[in-house]
Amino acid sequence: MPPGRTIKNRDQDKALSMRAAIALAISGMERGDGGPFGAVVVRDGRIVGRGWNRVLVDHDPTAHAEIVALRAACRRLGTHVLSGCEIFASCDPCPMCLAAIHWARVDRIWYAAPSRAAAAAGFDDTRFKRELRLPPGKRRLPARRILSAEGAEPFRRWAKMSTRTLY
Amino acid sequence: MPPGRTIKNRDQDKALSMRAAIALAISGMERGDGGPFGAVVVRDGRIVGRGWNRVLVDHDPTAHAEIVALRAACRRLGTHVLSGCEIFASCDPCPMCLAAIHWARVDRIWYAAPSRAAAAAGFDDTRFKRELRLPPGKRRLPARRILSAEGAEPFRRWAKMSTRTLY
Repeated sequence: MPPGRTIKNRDQDKALSMRAAIALAISGMERGDGGPFGAVVVRDGRIVGRGWNRVLVDHDPTAHAEIVALRAACRRLGTHVLSGCEIFASCDPCPMCLAAIHWARVDRIWYAAPSRAAAAAGFDDTRFKRELRLPPGKRRLPARRILSAEGAEPFRRWAKMSTRTLY
Repeated sequence: MPPGRTIKNRDQDKALSMRAAIALAISGMERGDGGPFGAVVVRDGRIVGRGWNRVLVDHDPTAHAEIVALRAACRRLGTHVLSGCEIFASCDPCPMCLAAIHWARVDRIWYAAPSRAAAAAGFDDTRFKRELRLPPGKRRLPARRILSAEGAEPFRRWAKMSTRTLY
């Protein structure tokens, strides 16, 4: 197969994956499950996880489309590591989802709408993004340290465990 | 009750909550559920959600202690909004958990170990933090926009919905 054909197929695959994410955004929103966001995780050209925003229906502030799709893909593949996978999100992921995508070791992000579209629709993560850049003491959300000596104990025990698995 | 006594009780409550988070970190890790992290969500002095790292046992890269505790609290309280609540985390939350705590509208964070302790134990979110500060085009994790016209459709429909709920 000539390279041009392969690239064209690849572009068609990408469009299909993104359209699936957008369709999930619309159907989930219209059912009242949550905001207008959808996502799919793809490996080797096949969708292995689907998600849409379920914040309202699940009473779960972490049930963003991307998180739901990552969890579904991991459940299906039986792993917490999604290297070799790409995520297609109907909108540029928020900081929570972006960090989750990092932790999951996803290879690449594709998105359709920019984050300013989410902000304009009332889902404004701009202030979170600003906050995440600040050191803890300068954030509006107060974060204070207590029991620092006792807080070292889990790590001390972790260091001594022979069976520990990093991720 | 004199104010001093109240403050002392409050300090004792905080210590008890943090000790619960640290105990969950240790027990979860020793069972092999995941890394050495625990968290509890507290409202009106009572623990309403418990969590420990379950990344390995659940095959879920998002199952950090704080996320698990937030979801448990929301399930118990039947809401996706945790204003009026505080979270006690055995370690300074990673960017994913910090953003989740923001989305959940938690009032305040208490933590025991600093994030450098997690990094030293092999859970290094330093590069995520750096990445989150960069614009999408400058990140190591590639993020590309496609189908931008179609990506606007969920938001168009959202704007027309009469029953939409913001969160």
